[in-house]
Amino acid sequence: MRQSSLFTKTRREAPKDELAKNAQLLIRAGYVHKEMAGVYAYLPLGLKVVERIKEIVREEMEAVGAHELLMTSLQSKELWEKTDRWDDKNVDVWFKSELKNGSEVGFGWSHEEPITELMTEYLESYRDLPAFVYQFQTKLRNELRAKSGIMRGREFVMKDMYSYTRDEEAHLKFYNAAIQAYHNVFMRVGLGERTYLTFASGGAFTQFSHEFQTLCDAGEDIIYVHKEKRLAVNKEVLTPEVLAQLDIKREDLVEEKAVEVGNIFSFGDVKSQQLGLTYRDEEGNEKPVILGSYGIGITRLMGTIVEAFADEKGIVWPESVSPFAYHLVSLAGNDAEIAAFAEGLYEELTDAGKSVLYDDRDARAGEKFADADLIGIPWRIVIGKEALATGQVELVHRKTGEVTRVGRAELLQR
Amino acid sequence: MRQSSLFTKTRREAPKDELAKNAQLLIRAGYVHKEMAGVYAYLPLGLKVVERIKEIVREEMEAVGAHELLMTSLQSKELWEKTDRWDDKNVDVWFKSELKNGSEVGFGWSHEEPITELMTEYLESYRDLPAFVYQFQTKLRNELRAKSGIMRGREFVMKDMYSYTRDEEAHLKFYNAAIQAYHNVFMRVGLGERTYLTFASGGAFTQFSHEFQTLCDAGEDIIYVHKEKRLAVNKEVLTPEVLAQLDIKREDLVEEKAVEVGNIFSFGDVKSQQLGLTYRDEEGNEKPVILGSYGIGITRLMGTIVEAFADEKGIVWPESVSPFAYHLVSLAGNDAEIAAFAEGLYEELTDAGKSVLYDDRDARAGEKFADADLIGIPWRIVIGKEALATGQVELVHRKTGEVTRVGRAELLQR
Repeated sequence: MRQSSLFTKTRREAPKDELAKNAQLLIRAGYVHKEMAGVYAYLPLGLKVVERIKEIVREEMEAVGAHELLMTSLQSKELWEKTDRWDDKNVDVWFKSELKNGSEVGFGWSHEEPITELMTEYLESYRDLPAFVYQFQTKLRNELRAKSGIMRGREFVMKDMYSYTRDEEAHLKFYNAAIQAYHNVFMRVGLGERTYLTFASGGAFTQFSHEFQTLCDAGEDIIYVHKEKRLAVNKEVLTPEVLAQLDIKREDLVEEKAVEVGNIFSFGDVKSQQLGLTYRDEEGNEKPVILGSYGIGITRLMGTIVEAFADEKGIVWPESVSPFAYHLVSLAGNDAEIAAFAEGLYEELTDAGKSVLYDDRDARAGEKFADADLIGIPWRIVIGKEALATGQVELVHRKTGEVTRVGRAELLQR
Repeated sequence: MRQSSLFTKTRREAPKDELAKNAQLLIRAGYVHKEMAGVYAYLPLGLKVVERIKEIVREEMEAVGAHELLMTSLQSKELWEKTDRWDDKNVDVWFKSELKNGSEVGFGWSHEEPITELMTEYLESYRDLPAFVYQFQTKLRNELRAKSGIMRGREFVMKDMYSYTRDEEAHLKFYNAAIQAYHNVFMRVGLGERTYLTFASGGAFTQFSHEFQTLCDAGEDIIYVHKEKRLAVNKEVLTPEVLAQLDIKREDLVEEKAVEVGNIFSFGDVKSQQLGLTYRDEEGNEKPVILGSYGIGITRLMGTIVEAFADEKGIVWPESVSPFAYHLVSLAGNDAEIAAFAEGLYEELTDAGKSVLYDDRDARAGEKFADADLIGIPWRIVIGKEALATGQVELVHRKTGEVTRVGRAELLQR
């Protein structure tokens, strides 16, 4: 993409009311635009990152046998009353409105209820089980406060997956496969090392739920990490009984701030009982279906990646989620030969299938370098007089600042 | 995809309150699920069609130089008051709610206002123009009635594009490029022949807007078609003056029912004036930016395709938007050899990059054929005893019913 065709520009300052580092940098670099507190539009560069994260998540969800669908934002009161989650006293993040005929409707902040009701139309027999589905959905949550940038929004993109199985054994098999798929996702986006499977409160049906918590100063959670065993315990369940049960000692745990980037949860047969989702087994007995729910906050993950890797110069994207692989910076100025060299290389790289942001703007070198640092693409290719003279270009690694010189052929083969 | 892994099943009956043919068929075949009137979830097969249509539209929008972004559903009252489109008396399709602090918010039914306001932060000089952006957004509209299935929903996917140009000349250049891009889209999804560029009411700034109307009995619009000139006039502007202006005669026009699958609209500088979007020209004069708006209803287009091509047996997808290219139907029953043949062919086809829905279910041939007809994938491959004996498979064209016999190698090379 030619940077001259991009309407976004970098900014020196983020909006004054924006306190979160992730949003400050993403706004300054032109990835997102703040519509209101906790509500961000995703500009061309930002949407590319969202889509790259989604594609990694999609691949891992498909690998465990889940199929993608898309539920609706509009939700009926009658459905959520069945599980007692309509009343604002029980769920305090609903946005609600009404149809022209006066019927109340809500806007989806979660989707266990509609997906489970939908399944009552399709799942009848043990032959129909298991069923695994997921979606990428824009969730709307009427949060009281929204001050963590894109890490806790009133409108945000979430991947939510649901498993429907016949019994606890089949449930656990998928639950464990999902844990592994989640580890794969966090590893692939570069957060594997600092993300911990965390024991958290389980609700009505199970003792524990499992969170994936990424160590991060901007996190809103406190967890206790056992680095050696690579697991953690959420503050909310840190009791002597739980420590004994997990066979870990309090003194081996380190208190850390963390962001919940994923969570998985067993609903058992509670929702199925409430919504009438049953199946007939081989003997014709009617039994409730077991439900599991598995979430990853896609835009929160994007914010966490920014928080985790940014330095004083700006964003530092891991290669796996960067909007482009290369940032080709032309220092042509008025030099037609350098401009032609840069144009030629841009064409060659894109023809070879490489994703390139090409800074073809008429601007000073210092401004271009500062913008490139802020935008944070992993590899910068610099085309100046020297490239023309030697045929070699300067390749700069955003993360380490390391500079190497490579020829065109080498660059194309990378 | 193995059909046995798909939780959806075909149904003999659509919900009794569903009157529209598109929704009846899409529900019966397992493409969509009705959440409430005008609100449909997209099941795995349905989401694949939506994504294929989006990809065609995306390619054509990128080809005219537009960049994709994603605006928000949540909208601020203050913004829409500036253009006098907040009040329910002026816009009667708002869903509205409020934040915890009592501020009113709306849910996006259109996005000219927020995109134009966003642009005020980026567009300053003639050097920043033109700028072309588009998005695929879930729009929410509080329609009084919703009885046309996915062709007029309260929640639906729309592609909306916006052009920002410095003057009328640059505007018209892009406007005409967009008309061509729209023709390309409708041609590629199979509706080109029956879709007409239609002159319609233009609002405050221009005499005409342009609609793309697809002839369809289920359409809610009445248009007057000039088949020879391949254009049409919306009933709302059918006056002697307009006919004279377009140099067409009333007697050459045929009245037709049609669906508005796309529309393009010049806002001139009206919104820019209201929202303060100006630029400085070469002489430093401050001028308002010219805005154009270009919509395609993605899910409406999907419904129109169903209405246009379905026959008495079910849906008939054009190849360009079908969820799969092939429906591989195994008639193995208890025959292990046929099952192995079908499995092998499924692996070979998918390894060769072909998209295949593989009916590996334990069901009667009649049921499988009826399901395949209802689901409407363009090419059915039948694997029975004969395939095993001759090595040739039966290839059935869904649209014409034509049957040919082809060998494996030929199938892989198609």
